[in-house]
Amino acid sequence: MTLLVALTWEPKLWVERFQKLLPDRKIAVLGEPFDRRTVRYAATWGPKPGSLSGLPMLDAIFSLGAGVDHLLSYPDLPDVPIVRVAQDDLTHRMSEYVVMHCLMHLREQPRYDAQQRRKVWEDDASPPTARDVRVGIMGFGVLGEDAARKLKVMGFDVAGWSRTPKEIEGFAMFSGTEGLDAFLARTDILVTLMPLTPETRGILNRELFGKLARDGRLGGPVLINPGRGKLQVESDILECLDDGTLKAASLDVFETEPLPSESPLWSHPCVMVSPHNAATSDPDATARYIVDQIRRYEAGQGFQNVVDKARGY
Amino acid sequence: MTLLVALTWEPKLWVERFQKLLPDRKIAVLGEPFDRRTVRYAATWGPKPGSLSGLPMLDAIFSLGAGVDHLLSYPDLPDVPIVRVAQDDLTHRMSEYVVMHCLMHLREQPRYDAQQRRKVWEDDASPPTARDVRVGIMGFGVLGEDAARKLKVMGFDVAGWSRTPKEIEGFAMFSGTEGLDAFLARTDILVTLMPLTPETRGILNRELFGKLARDGRLGGPVLINPGRGKLQVESDILECLDDGTLKAASLDVFETEPLPSESPLWSHPCVMVSPHNAATSDPDATARYIVDQIRRYEAGQGFQNVVDKARGY
Repeated sequence: MTLLVALTWEPKLWVERFQKLLPDRKIAVLGEPFDRRTVRYAATWGPKPGSLSGLPMLDAIFSLGAGVDHLLSYPDLPDVPIVRVAQDDLTHRMSEYVVMHCLMHLREQPRYDAQQRRKVWEDDASPPTARDVRVGIMGFGVLGEDAARKLKVMGFDVAGWSRTPKEIEGFAMFSGTEGLDAFLARTDILVTLMPLTPETRGILNRELFGKLARDGRLGGPVLINPGRGKLQVESDILECLDDGTLKAASLDVFETEPLPSESPLWSHPCVMVSPHNAATSDPDATARYIVDQIRRYEAGQGFQNVVDKARGY
Repeated sequence: MTLLVALTWEPKLWVERFQKLLPDRKIAVLGEPFDRRTVRYAATWGPKPGSLSGLPMLDAIFSLGAGVDHLLSYPDLPDVPIVRVAQDDLTHRMSEYVVMHCLMHLREQPRYDAQQRRKVWEDDASPPTARDVRVGIMGFGVLGEDAARKLKVMGFDVAGWSRTPKEIEGFAMFSGTEGLDAFLARTDILVTLMPLTPETRGILNRELFGKLARDGRLGGPVLINPGRGKLQVESDILECLDDGTLKAASLDVFETEPLPSESPLWSHPCVMVSPHNAATSDPDATARYIVDQIRRYEAGQGFQNVVDKARGY
């Protein structure tokens, strides 16, 4: 019984990790010879189209990252469960990014950074504090809820939006198309943590930005996207920053990654760019998680965090 | 019965605030004529030496900021209670600063900021997360404890040091001269929130920096000082940054404020400078607090947050 490692970067390190945890199994790598009839599991991120076909014994596919949109769009995806990696570590790192960026926008960190470069000693007479600022978390799964709880401890006024109705004690919750406008109208900082699906692709556009609150203490709405790059229309973000529809943006993900050097986002004074590292997953923890899932499955307990292919996450 | 406003900046705004809250009292300003025999309270920040003398009916002095070291060093300070301003608002703002700066050092925000300016897309294969980093809060009063609780929620491994022994559930606590070395030895990020007293003046020096942990995940110890400028020896900070005893520093306060333009701190690549605005107090809330204390006192309930002049805070 073979575990196939099919991915585009550093396959050798993954083979080593899995071999250590599963010393009695064969670990195969795409691109090297292996017996396709023995493969029961595939661990993958961004495999080439077709590379997961022709595996008659395949029982499951493990995604090596948090998102699964990269897999669901594959043309010949085998009809087996896809298991998402869900790790506390990744959740906590994402909340670090979200809290840090909300605080940097609240406290105008880019302004003070620029002032330092010019040796200017100057502050605001009455700056806002966290409780003056309304954060809206769009996508209220495991990541969204953890970020929301931590933002609330810091004092922010936090609400959530989810596709289907959810009740979470302590938060104003909105849902569905019918709840979106009211949610946006009370949002000074929009944090987007939704999965990429046909419905969410390109949702971060001029029409949505125009519905964000304009009566807040920050002088205009702020977008923080550590979710998926294809949620956003970058030409709209740039136009909206320039005409004042948006005040600022923190972007960790982009339509094309790495962000091309000709993108105006790099040098826009109101944009904070990071290289898709808001929540780096720890490869050792990911390997342990996958091996735990294989053990659960083989002990008859089934997989956890199986993707609903109809919903897309 | 007169409330004397004795301070060096914007006295008119303070007179207006107090007059609105105490319409039947006389509000006097230092520098304008008033009857010294009628003054019962003085609200002040940085008054000129001697300006609080010769007030025979004085019952209390209110400090308009969080610290009182500026008052205790006055030569002719009247022997009346000094009341500290203690506001939740100020505490929460201080915690925003502390959590933001701990996260910025954890996540190497200055590095990614510099990379953005050079359009470089590059990250770390296995960056540390909050639970890998030990924060030490030196000075565990109201401000220190609130910051510690919020840092813990974010996942940091937090300990505290106080002058006198304290037990605070959930935190490793150290105290006194005898506990200082052990506290420093387990500290990757040192956050200093102690009052300025004869014992703490200049305590942030080469000797202390040399005792900080050198085995942490950040590549060297970090200093965050939003407390008092005269706690720190700036020439030692600069030398220790240059020889690697310190990795980085966030400084909100300085030996001389505003920070002189010739200070090398402004342009040091490992220093984040802010203009003493970590915790701006809201003047309206401060005025309300002082008027509340006057009402308490006149109703026979006594003042809250009276300074212990022997301890210095």
